[in-house]
Formats: sequence, C-alpha cells, structure tokens
Amino acid sequence: MAAHFVGLPRIDLRSHAGGDRARWDARCRRSAGLSGPADDAARAIVERVRTEGDRAIFELTAQLEGRRLDRFELDHAARRAAALRVPAALRAALELAAERIAAFHRTQLAVLAEPTGLASGGALLQSRPTPLFRVGVYAPGGTAAYPSSVLMAAVPAKIAGVQEVILFTPRPSDVVVLAAEIAGVDRIFAIGGAQAIAAAAFGTETVPRVDKIVGPGNAWVTAAKRHVYGVCDVDGIAGPSEILVVADAGADPTIVAADLLSQAEHDELACAVLVTDDAALVERVDAALVDQLGDLPRAAIASKALVEHGAAVLVDGRDAMVAAANEYAPEHLELLVATPDELVPRLRTAGAIFVGAWTPEAAGDYTAGPSHVLPTAGAARFGSPLGVWDFVKYTSVLRLDAAALAAQSDAIVTLARAEGLEAHARAVEARLRRST
Amino acid sequence: MAAHFVGLPRIDLRSHAGGDRARWDARCRRSAGLSGPADDAARAIVERVRTEGDRAIFELTAQLEGRRLDRFELDHAARRAAALRVPAALRAALELAAERIAAFHRTQLAVLAEPTGLASGGALLQSRPTPLFRVGVYAPGGTAAYPSSVLMAAVPAKIAGVQEVILFTPRPSDVVVLAAEIAGVDRIFAIGGAQAIAAAAFGTETVPRVDKIVGPGNAWVTAAKRHVYGVCDVDGIAGPSEILVVADAGADPTIVAADLLSQAEHDELACAVLVTDDAALVERVDAALVDQLGDLPRAAIASKALVEHGAAVLVDGRDAMVAAANEYAPEHLELLVATPDELVPRLRTAGAIFVGAWTPEAAGDYTAGPSHVLPTAGAARFGSPLGVWDFVKYTSVLRLDAAALAAQSDAIVTLARAEGLEAHARAVEARLRRST
Repeated sequence: MAAHFVGLPRIDLRSHAGGDRARWDARCRRSAGLSGPADDAARAIVERVRTEGDRAIFELTAQLEGRRLDRFELDHAARRAAALRVPAALRAALELAAERIAAFHRTQLAVLAEPTGLASGGALLQSRPTPLFRVGVYAPGGTAAYPSSVLMAAVPAKIAGVQEVILFTPRPSDVVVLAAEIAGVDRIFAIGGAQAIAAAAFGTETVPRVDKIVGPGNAWVTAAKRHVYGVCDVDGIAGPSEILVVADAGADPTIVAADLLSQAEHDELACAVLVTDDAALVERVDAALVDQLGDLPRAAIASKALVEHGAAVLVDGRDAMVAAANEYAPEHLELLVATPDELVPRLRTAGAIFVGAWTPEAAGDYTAGPSHVLPTAGAARFGSPLGVWDFVKYTSVLRLDAAALAAQSDAIVTLARAEGLEAHARAVEARLRRST
Repeated sequence: MAAHFVGLPRIDLRSHAGGDRARWDARCRRSAGLSGPADDAARAIVERVRTEGDRAIFELTAQLEGRRLDRFELDHAARRAAALRVPAALRAALELAAERIAAFHRTQLAVLAEPTGLASGGALLQSRPTPLFRVGVYAPGGTAAYPSSVLMAAVPAKIAGVQEVILFTPRPSDVVVLAAEIAGVDRIFAIGGAQAIAAAAFGTETVPRVDKIVGPGNAWVTAAKRHVYGVCDVDGIAGPSEILVVADAGADPTIVAADLLSQAEHDELACAVLVTDDAALVERVDAALVDQLGDLPRAAIASKALVEHGAAVLVDGRDAMVAAANEYAPEHLELLVATPDELVPRLRTAGAIFVGAWTPEAAGDYTAGPSHVLPTAGAARFGSPLGVWDFVKYTSVLRLDAAALAAQSDAIVTLARAEGLEAHARAVEARLRRST
C-alpha cells in the first residue's frame, strides 16, 4: 500500500540553500476561495430550490442521490430508535467529548456578556450582543459522516444560546443522530448537497430559513454556501485539512510521523508539513512514515497526500521555524520542540496550536474541548475556530438627549452637506428648531 | 420635484384588516445575497488581476474608468497637499467624528482582552485573540465618496490594532484623503472597482495582499467581494440603505418625515418604512413628506425610493410594532414612541437602534460613535455593525500533559475508529506506549 511513498518532498529554506523559496511561497498561497467547476451546478440547484421549494428538494434528491423521500424530517421516534442502536462505548465517548466541548465553550461566553459602551454628555452608546435565533449545521453523509463534527458545531451553538439548531445531513447514520441528540440539536432534516444549503438559506414549505449555516461539505456544498452568503451567514469556505508540525532534534520521529499521518489519511488533498532545523530528523521521520504506512487502512490516500501536498521544510533555527509557520498559516500547528511555550506568543496565524508531545492533533479532533472546525487553506490569517462568537451578533444602541445632539449638530450638518446629503442635515436642524 | 410623491404605500397589518400580510412578508424577505448581472464581469476582472497583476489594473482602469495611471499609490506629499486643501470647518467636523468613533470603539476592546479558557486535570485550553495584520478599506469614488465611511471603517480597524490599513478608492477627493489621514490609514491606492478588490485579495507587484476587505461599493465591487471571499475575509454583502421608524401618536410628523427622507435621499433603492399604530400619524407624515420634498436637492431620488420601497405599516399596538421591526430586520431602527427604552430589549434584529426623538439616524451616520457600516437587506438577523470584532481572530491553544491525554485516550481511540480514521487512533496510542 505504501509503495508510492518514497519520502516527504524537501523544501530547503536554509540560508546556505536558496532555490526553494518560490516553492515555499507557492505552498503558502493555497486558497479555498475561488469558485470551481461545481459553482454553476450549485447555483442552478440553489435557484431551483429558492423558486420551487420542497418539490425541487424531492426531485433533486431522487435525481442526484437516488433517494426517493416522502418527507425530510426525522421524527422523534426515528431519532430515539437510531440513538439506541449505538454501542455503549461509542455513546460514552461521544458524551465525554460533548461535556468537554461544552465546558470549553462556556469559557467563551464573555462575548455574550452585558453590553459594552459608554455614557457621557447626555449620550448613551452601546454594543449589545444577542445570540442568533436559528442555525443550520451541515454534516456530510457517507464515509465522510463524522459524528464528532456534529458535536463540534452544534454544542457551541447551543452554549451560545441559539434557540433552534437544525442538522442537515443526507442519509443520517445512527451515530450521527446520537451525536445530534447529545448536542441538543432541535430538528434533523435528512437532506444534503446544494439543495440542503438552499433550503436552509431561503426556507421552504417544511424547512424554516436559518440565520447562519456552519459545517463543511463537498465542493457543491461549498459552492452553494458561497452563493447564499448574504442571504444568511456562512462559516467560511473550507478547503482540505492541514497540519504543520514544528519539530527540533529532540522530537520523537515516531510521534512526528504518526501526527503527519493522522492528517494525511483524511484526504488525498490533505496537507501534512514538517518544519525543522534538523536534517537528520527528516530522514528518521521518512523512515517512520514508511513503517507506519505499512498496515494503515487508508495508506493509499495518506501516501498520495504526503507525496503531493506534504513537505519537509528545512530552516535555520527557531526564529525561522516561527516565520515559516506564520507564512503557512496552518489549520493545525503542532509544536514538538524544546520549551514550546516560548514560541506560542509569536505564532500569529494558526487555527489551533498543539503545544508539546502530549497534545496530539487527534485529541483536538475529538475530546480536548476547542472546536475542530477550523480555518483551512490559509484562512487562519483572518479566520477563527468555530466558537461562541460565530453565533453572536451585535446591535448598536444609541440614545442622545437634547444637549448631546446640540453638541454634535454643527459637525453633523457640516459633514452631511459636504457629502451632498441635505436631508441628513435637515433631520438634525428640525430637532434643534424644536428645542428652542 | 416631488410631483411623483403621492404618499407612502400602505401596508395594513391590523387584525381587522388582513389582506396585506403577504406584501409585508415579501418586504421582509429582501436580500442582497444573490449574484446579479455584474457577477460574471466581476469574476473575469478578478481572474485577470489575479493572473496579470499590476498590468491588468493599469489596463482595466484605463478601459473602465478612462484614467491612465502611471502609479497607484498616493505618496506622502500628495496626501499632505490634499489634506491641506480641506476647509477648517470640515476638518474640525471630521476630527470630532474621529474622536467620538475612537472613544466608542475602545469600549469594544474587551474582545481583544487576555485569552479565555480553562486549566484542569493537566489540560490547558485557551481561545487567544489576535488583531488581523493587514486590512483593506474600500471607499467608492465620485458622488458616493463619503469621507465619513472612511472614518467608520478605518478608525475601528486601528483601535483593534491592525498593523496596516490600506484605503482603496478611485479618484480620491481631498476630503477622503484627509479622513484617511485622521483615521491613521497607512497607505492609499487610487484604484477602484472589482480590480481593486482583486488586488487587495491576491496582492500584485505593488499592492500587498490583505487579510480582510471592508466597506461597501457598487454592484461590481460587491460581486468581486463575494468572489474573493475565502481568499481573504470580507465584511458582508451590502445592499441599499434602510430605516424603519417605529412611531406612535405622540411622535412629531415633521421629525418622522425628516428621518425617512434622510434615508430615502441616499438611493432610489433605499428603504424607508414607518411602522405605527396611529392611522392619523400616517396622514400627517405624508403631508410633511410632501412639504419637505419641496426644496430637497435630491427630491427625485427620495420620492422614487419612498414610492417604490417605502411603506406606512399599520399595526395594533406596541407588541405588534416590536414584531414588525423584528420581522423586517432593518439596518437602522428608530424609536419615536413613548417610553422607548422598554422596547429596546425586545428588538432582536436591527443593525442600530436609535432611541427617542433626540437621536436622529443622521447622528449615527456621522458623529455619535458607533460605526455606520451596518448590516443591510435583512442581514441584521445575523450580522453586526462593523466593529473591533471584525478585526480580531481567535486561535485555540491546547496543551495536555500525559495524565490529561490518558484520561481522554479511550474516547479518542473509540471515536477515531468509529469514523474510520485509524491513524488518528494510532497517534494517541504511540504516545501512551511511550509513557509506559
């Protein structure tokens, strides 16, 4: 199975080297942003669901998935029955994960604290937070149906106080349904693809429209999310999963290899990158990768990912490690170095930072607590892990008294007239006349 | 000029009426979200700038705007000279506005406070906030060049700690340049349209790529922002400006009319809606509108907006006023009613709420302090005013010790195997072996 893997592609950024900078820059400019070939198809589906509602969903689900539905929604009996079929050990694992995810996300509730603002000179000005009312969580079906992702999206939404969380997923498995039950998901619609995204954004006869859609999907789902962005909010444009491992001579090559593989096995497009100042470590990691690929079930996928999107990046020392990590802006960043805490404050662009050898990325995927829904494809430059902040919006509240308005009125009138907006000026002047 | 205005279209939602609910629902389902005819043109421009860089910008600016540039960036001498040409009164007004905007946005800095999180059982888990590094502010040129919008976007970015704020604007006017100087904008590029959005998102030989683009633009700019969403972040999909005035029998019709006009004069597509339980007020507001339109410079625009997108909505009492406002989800919501503060906590979906007769929306447009860049077209259901939170991202920081990992390892391994991700399970097991 691992026959194709001959070692991680080398990118040498050491000062005495020099030819590889352009290759590294190209790796750092990956992007999930641009519309792909699925775009036009997704747009057509979205338009059809927008105008035809449920009928379009029935027809598209039959046509694209070969599923003839007579209704979308799982009723309570079906949900309970599915949940009861899940083995106890798996249920216990999901419950532990949900508890830890909830505990962590409660610490983010500061963003939903009382309004901030100021009161002075007769003006009261506030930023008032409010949870979103209704949110859609998308979860893929088939082999990419991850119950952990349902927890990682739905639990933070519920902690934030979202009133109604709706799961959209085609062919929901028993364990996905159980995860939804544990997370407190309010409704489950067994539909997927661009048609589910359109239903969530616009609403249909049976699906209520949502305020935001979160959770990753395939290319059609991603294209549909971009298309409805603005009708409702979406949680970003997801690309393949990524890990960047920063390791020094003291790192255990077995651990480094295991963590690179835990990313690479996701997807042939997954990115697993090692950054180190120790050329010998690269050789030892390559050997460990070959060894561990030997009986890995998804070795074919993992080795293809390593060869095509992996890299062993050689740099000079710790400052250069930090620089490379910041340039790459990985979804997951592991620090397998001496005194890793010293580096953390300098690492500005990562979705999640895993500090030290006892913090495998796999712990973050399941039980540690922070959401594993993270910015990919360089979006860690500007994006955040899914969190309570995703489910909060702010409203400005302004209250002036006569004195406060009078104190600003000259400036308002001057600016309004400079911008050619006479009615703005007059709206202030009408009040000033009234007060005298 | 006001010849076309014969009164606000009536929508009667009172219980004894009944026929108008569908018309109201249609008004509440406006959306700036879907791609329009500008979409394909904008996409082609974006692609061209992405692949050809500066050369495409020079050519597109000549072709689309008739401007032949030899460089994009305003140098310091040009910026200083432009700023010095602005009259003192206008400078003073901009400075007052900037001071108040800065003071208000400093109160939002709680979102940039120390990391939140928890430490227990050998696990340290944090959400760490970081300001974005580089942000692009877009400002339209020509008659829609609003220096106030430069302040409203750039000041919060600088308060948030963004290192580099770049203004993109075609044909920058002197007062726009002065606003940029006052706001602390670092660089000004005199380019606009979809080509400026593409340059900001991808970077070119002379334009560094940004992490986020904020600020509204025309249809091409909006389409380009949607297209690059994911390459960088964008601040939402803007639609026409809106006001919903909730007024009761005690409201001054002159004030109500003045505030409706201060929205309607923006744009023929602007939405100005009155919600009231007093049919007599509607008649008096209509009369005041006719009167005030008489010598308003932009009366033609305003009256078209009022006739086509305005409304006088009649409801039964205060609860129904609240319900109508929440359904409409306006950008600006004014409360010209008795004891308006009682209503504020129940109003869940508005960009900004203006409480009481001394708080004209025009004050919020210029000097009050909160940003006037607000969610439109119903996006107040899920969107926020532009604020410090727009310029902050979070990173999860996870650190486990051996005991913490051991406590979770059974659950991780169980979940990983249930999801078919063997390498995830082994990454944990490799560590457990090491510890024994």
